[in-house]
Amino acid sequence: MTEFIYGHWAIMEALRANRRQMEQLLVTETVEEKGIAAEIMQTAQEKGVKVRRVPRRIIDDLANNANHQNMALRTGDYPYVKVEDALAVAQARGEKPFLLLLDLLKDPQNVGGLLRVADAVGIHGVILQDRRGVGVTPAVVNASSGAVEHLNVVQVTNLVQAMRDLKEQDVWLVGLDIGPNVPPIDKVDLNIGIGLVLGSEGEGMRRLVRDTCDLLVSLPMRGRVASLNVATVGAVALYSAWQARGWAGWAHA
Amino acid sequence: MTEFIYGHWAIMEALRANRRQMEQLLVTETVEEKGIAAEIMQTAQEKGVKVRRVPRRIIDDLANNANHQNMALRTGDYPYVKVEDALAVAQARGEKPFLLLLDLLKDPQNVGGLLRVADAVGIHGVILQDRRGVGVTPAVVNASSGAVEHLNVVQVTNLVQAMRDLKEQDVWLVGLDIGPNVPPIDKVDLNIGIGLVLGSEGEGMRRLVRDTCDLLVSLPMRGRVASLNVATVGAVALYSAWQARGWAGWAHA
Repeated sequence: MTEFIYGHWAIMEALRANRRQMEQLLVTETVEEKGIAAEIMQTAQEKGVKVRRVPRRIIDDLANNANHQNMALRTGDYPYVKVEDALAVAQARGEKPFLLLLDLLKDPQNVGGLLRVADAVGIHGVILQDRRGVGVTPAVVNASSGAVEHLNVVQVTNLVQAMRDLKEQDVWLVGLDIGPNVPPIDKVDLNIGIGLVLGSEGEGMRRLVRDTCDLLVSLPMRGRVASLNVATVGAVALYSAWQARGWAGWAHA
Repeated sequence: MTEFIYGHWAIMEALRANRRQMEQLLVTETVEEKGIAAEIMQTAQEKGVKVRRVPRRIIDDLANNANHQNMALRTGDYPYVKVEDALAVAQARGEKPFLLLLDLLKDPQNVGGLLRVADAVGIHGVILQDRRGVGVTPAVVNASSGAVEHLNVVQVTNLVQAMRDLKEQDVWLVGLDIGPNVPPIDKVDLNIGIGLVLGSEGEGMRRLVRDTCDLLVSLPMRGRVASLNVATVGAVALYSAWQARGWAGWAHA
């Protein structure tokens, strides 16, 4: 299927990662060839992607009127991988598996934001269910500032089945939950092979997903407005887990 | 000055906190009195705030066409406090000061998101410079889901001077920075009186602000897209600091 990725960093990272079929870079007639726009157009040409100037309203349409920054890249599908590919990254790096599982998240901003953090902490793979939740759409690519173009994302038909398979590969599934009986995240040793599981906005994890977790952890909260956005919870949890793993793979560690 | 706060949680928390002068709750003619909308209208009546139905376009105007969820609360100014008031909260709770300083952040979404996390971790006060950066506007109240209505926010004329004054009160100023020579955040003992300092989007801290910090810490990153949004960095840093303080004040600690 053909997609149109929009926004400077989304397009730049798609070009740099060079994992998709890339057909054409559309830019508005009025875009000035300077700064990041010029860099993107040059990178496209180096990769053999033809640059074409079109009226602005065409890009408005292709980007569903999102903030496209005068550009849309016509590409093939997002290159999903398999769970084995993600686990192979862990093995190649000599690290215990470090995965992120998203249970039916709906908001592209949240998913994109989480994928950007997942990239920053060196997640080996991200696992999504392929129906009812959001996939790697152009809006997600944009919200991730292009980070998802470098990540290994797996789409599975049944998240619970994927969790059961991971358990057999010595991956511990750690669900982010709330409630007084759930231990805070720093009271659990996360320096093991883990898959962090995040539930959807408002709803949290589905019951069977929660029940399939090996352990549950919480983020303490003491404020008057006792709730946080799932993207915030996930960012804090991903960093907490990476810290527990001694910042493995960090250039300055 | 009169302001119009919009959005369900922004209005609900302003009513609950009851710190502002509150004049009138405007709701659209078509809003149904059920769920959270009904709760808000009932809470307004309990607080003696008159509810008035008006054409939708009036609320669209008052909320600058933001997603107002059919309601706008006409209020007086945000109740800024003084640095001493924030330090008094620390003393009253028997805790070492835990402050957040924002250096000229511009994006209401970022500031609102940070304030929501600041509330969740029990920050004693937030310090902003009163010119060039964003203040507590209705957009910030909305983006904080109303959390800022419960927080102690201080506006100062000169952030550097405020930092110098804080040092004399035994508050250590810890700046979030980047670079290979900056130690990661977990290598520094944050279980002391601290003020976490965050720089603006893109620019980071101004030079004099950075130089006035007592120490600098970084958030490690290892991804291909090596940058994170300031709201994400701040959320992780606030939680890291609160964790170092043993989740002080958490009901289940």
